[in-house]
Amino acid sequence: MKSNKINIAEKFSKFSKHWSPRIIAEMNNYQFKLAKIKGEFVWHAHKDTDETFIVIKGNLNMKFRDHTVNLSEGEMIVVPKGVEHKPCSDKECKILVIEPRGVINTGDEVNNLTINEDQWI
Amino acid sequence: MKSNKINIAEKFSKFSKHWSPRIIAEMNNYQFKLAKIKGEFVWHAHKDTDETFIVIKGNLNMKFRDHTVNLSEGEMIVVPKGVEHKPCSDKECKILVIEPRGVINTGDEVNNLTINEDQWI
Repeated sequence: MKSNKINIAEKFSKFSKHWSPRIIAEMNNYQFKLAKIKGEFVWHAHKDTDETFIVIKGNLNMKFRDHTVNLSEGEMIVVPKGVEHKPCSDKECKILVIEPRGVINTGDEVNNLTINEDQWI
Repeated sequence: MKSNKINIAEKFSKFSKHWSPRIIAEMNNYQFKLAKIKGEFVWHAHKDTDETFIVIKGNLNMKFRDHTVNLSEGEMIVVPKGVEHKPCSDKECKILVIEPRGVINTGDEVNNLTINEDQWI
């Protein structure tokens, strides 16, 4: 079985839609997803899993109910399971998200930002 | 519960030893580890888990028994479980490794490079 390398910048060049995570790799039952974000997402939580965000380019403001964490390129945060959060970014920000397969991006909240199917690039 | 951000470059500045992974974060039962590598590691496999490598700085040559994958900054690879591999780097390379808690760096092979305890930074 051959393992291929994945170039993150090259994968980012393949899509432009905001808030539309694209899967680039799987490790066991976990997925690595790239997302371009801009503006405000919705408040949500994932009751069964932690979720990791790594900033590849730009600035991510991760809002929690009682504080905000401002992340720049090369910084990461693990949002604990069950904790409400709201990713925001004034300008476009590129992030790598790591979480178990099957996690819904909007958590328990289903709305027009909900992505229901795996989008591989 | 507060989530703190983690600055990858700042964490790398806290240690210098090669082949000595340091844990910077946990997501569920997975760990994020930084490592500085130089030279050749040992052939090994992890029979129960895939393992992810992301190159933060430098060049990583991931050797497999039948081919080598050369990775540069911003590139990643998922080594499938059970597949023998040997990370190598001519010059110092900085990598982020993601794998389940409890994985032994040298796999089934225990030798002088084996790290037996969690080293958090």
